[in-house]
Amino acid sequence: MRLSNFYLFTKKENPSDAYLASHKLMVRSGMIKQVATGIYSWLPMGLMVLNKIKEVVVEHHVKSNINEMLMPTIQSADIWKKSGRFNDYGKEMLKIKDRHNNDLLYGPTNEEMITDIISDDLKSYKDLPKLLFHVQWKFRDEVRPRFGIMRCREFLMKDAYSFDLDYDSAFFAYCKMFGLYMKIFKTLGLKVIPVRAESGPIGGALSHEFILESNEGESDIYYDNRLLNISIDQVNLDNKAEIKEYYEAVTNLYSCTSDKHEELNFNKNVPKDNQKLSKGIEVGHIFYFGTKYSELLNANFTNNNGKEALIHSGSYGIGISRLVGAIIEANYDEKGIIWPKEVSPFQLGLINVRNDNQVSLNFCESYYNNNASNFKILYDDRNARIGEKLNNMDLLGIPVQIIVGEKNLVNQNLEIKDRKTGKVNLVNIEKLQSYLSDNYEF
Amino acid sequence: MRLSNFYLFTKKENPSDAYLASHKLMVRSGMIKQVATGIYSWLPMGLMVLNKIKEVVVEHHVKSNINEMLMPTIQSADIWKKSGRFNDYGKEMLKIKDRHNNDLLYGPTNEEMITDIISDDLKSYKDLPKLLFHVQWKFRDEVRPRFGIMRCREFLMKDAYSFDLDYDSAFFAYCKMFGLYMKIFKTLGLKVIPVRAESGPIGGALSHEFILESNEGESDIYYDNRLLNISIDQVNLDNKAEIKEYYEAVTNLYSCTSDKHEELNFNKNVPKDNQKLSKGIEVGHIFYFGTKYSELLNANFTNNNGKEALIHSGSYGIGISRLVGAIIEANYDEKGIIWPKEVSPFQLGLINVRNDNQVSLNFCESYYNNNASNFKILYDDRNARIGEKLNNMDLLGIPVQIIVGEKNLVNQNLEIKDRKTGKVNLVNIEKLQSYLSDNYEF
Repeated sequence: MRLSNFYLFTKKENPSDAYLASHKLMVRSGMIKQVATGIYSWLPMGLMVLNKIKEVVVEHHVKSNINEMLMPTIQSADIWKKSGRFNDYGKEMLKIKDRHNNDLLYGPTNEEMITDIISDDLKSYKDLPKLLFHVQWKFRDEVRPRFGIMRCREFLMKDAYSFDLDYDSAFFAYCKMFGLYMKIFKTLGLKVIPVRAESGPIGGALSHEFILESNEGESDIYYDNRLLNISIDQVNLDNKAEIKEYYEAVTNLYSCTSDKHEELNFNKNVPKDNQKLSKGIEVGHIFYFGTKYSELLNANFTNNNGKEALIHSGSYGIGISRLVGAIIEANYDEKGIIWPKEVSPFQLGLINVRNDNQVSLNFCESYYNNNASNFKILYDDRNARIGEKLNNMDLLGIPVQIIVGEKNLVNQNLEIKDRKTGKVNLVNIEKLQSYLSDNYEF
Repeated sequence: MRLSNFYLFTKKENPSDAYLASHKLMVRSGMIKQVATGIYSWLPMGLMVLNKIKEVVVEHHVKSNINEMLMPTIQSADIWKKSGRFNDYGKEMLKIKDRHNNDLLYGPTNEEMITDIISDDLKSYKDLPKLLFHVQWKFRDEVRPRFGIMRCREFLMKDAYSFDLDYDSAFFAYCKMFGLYMKIFKTLGLKVIPVRAESGPIGGALSHEFILESNEGESDIYYDNRLLNISIDQVNLDNKAEIKEYYEAVTNLYSCTSDKHEELNFNKNVPKDNQKLSKGIEVGHIFYFGTKYSELLNANFTNNNGKEALIHSGSYGIGISRLVGAIIEANYDEKGIIWPKEVSPFQLGLINVRNDNQVSLNFCESYYNNNASNFKILYDDRNARIGEKLNNMDLLGIPVQIIVGEKNLVNQNLEIKDRKTGKVNLVNIEKLQSYLSDNYEF
């Protein structure tokens, strides 16, 4: 992408209402723009990251044989009245009257709707188990929206739902989703801690949160850091024994939110050296709630003895838009964002030191146009001062920068800057490709 | 995809409220389910088609250097009060009060919001021209939603917006989008007629609708059928001269909606043999509205004489969800849907005549598992009667079916059924790949 052809307007000033680094940096780097209190537009640079994260999450679900569907944003109040949550949910639910004075609402979550849908289709034990997911905008009318897209009102969430014959089968679905989440966060290049958690308004007996460690995080967590040594990489999510073994290995170690924390148990079960107190941001939450919604919304099936039984369910959420902010909280410095290469909107930033220099201009144009390796390049082709170009590229956080000037070109060299370390290496043009492969797996 | 692992529940009965074929067929083939009046969930089979169409539309825009962004579904009423449309839009606008009693609305379109966004960024003539688009859910509170997803309340739309220095530049953007739309509909395998149209509530002087011909269509159109001979294929959308020449060649021929129709001109300008009266479904609509919104929302820029001037704009919509229904209206028979291969959710349907036959079972399993050519296959691996499998596959509308039975396998043959013609050919296993390439360009 040529910067001259990209809708990108970076800002020098921080937004006056911003406290978190991610909020400041997303506005300054032209990723988002607030259009109403707690409601944001995603500008091209922001949307690229959002889509990238969404793509990783969707691909992992599809690969695990979880069917993608899409429920609407607007829901009828009827099903929420049946479940009792139309009144219980409180003022965070955005309630709406349509032109015929019917009660609607903007979905804050989808347990009621999905249960209503599957109760029409899943009639026999032969139809179970089923796992479904969707990625859709949700709305929660926060009393005081803040922290940019981290605690906003309209946000993008992936929510999955499992439907099973009985507890054993449902527990396997829960373990599978637990493992899938760990694989997803690994693919996104993130260090995420699974912790036992309260179920809150969703309800149910079993619940875990997934916390991305960050100094500015709003959640306090306590865990046994030996759980970091248990790898998900080789676990086959469709193998019941393997996934349960993984789940038990992880969850047998102490790990929980402050709500669930018991100091006595922590000290008894975790050696001092392994005790970790930390802060982080919730980026995922999974629930097993058994037959709660099936009972309220009549989701029955006929079992293999010909008898009616209630479907067992769970729900599994990842905050897609929230992840964008959370990833920045864990990856920035005083100059700007430092994208992990897994989610970066571009792989390479290409900077021409002087646009009026024919030698460097020719090199940049031909490198960008030929781009034999098909890298995703952001090419700053603007006629701007080099200082501004360098600062801007640092702010945007693309992992690798190629800085092209005549002085180095004469010796067949380019400056390659690593955004994270700030280190600049002179690399011979002939060796550029192998340098990028060796150092960045490009 | 194995049918045994796919959330697909086809129905034998038509929905009682359905009049249009597309509505009946989408419900019966398990693509959608109504969850509130005029509000639908997209089940996995439906979402695959919706996503496919979205993908084609997005790719074409990106390839034409139009930047993708994403505006939220919920908007502040403030900008609509500025433009005067908060009251003018009528009861189709879904108005909302949040917990602090602020006026919000569910966006039915985005002229106000995009103009508000760009007015912050586009300050100089050097920042223009710009073209942006997004694909987002919209809501129009129809008084009587009907025809399934063709006239529903929550629907998916692609809307693009152009921002230019002056009329000449804006007119080129309009011509470019006109040509882009013709390329998109061609890629989707659709015969779409561009017609001159009224601007309606969007306003502006210049407007075209894009009509997919269909006997049950709600729009009457009149056109000179010589416009079907003008091809968009070789036109370079970034070449001003080429795209204007194309636009003028097409729009010099008579073509309009019934609102704009003048019988006298039609007869005077179009030879009898070329006069075409037809019905169709609106699937796209483009508008040039000049400085209308720039004036109301203060979108100025400094021109190259240092003077303030108003930005010229246009908007360009394609009904993504509506296209799913429109395509079915143009492609079905009494047995079910007949997907054009460009939008079909699967390329091949694989049917085992008898699941209890080891020979046919082995072939199907190995063909599906190996799938050397990486086709998208829907494999009916259910233990169901062959009649039910055949009817079901016809209903689903996948263009090519491979029917596998022992009798033919003994002679190394498979039955290949073309869904559109209904013709069945015996094809030797060795020649299957070349048969598919030759006949379906797979």
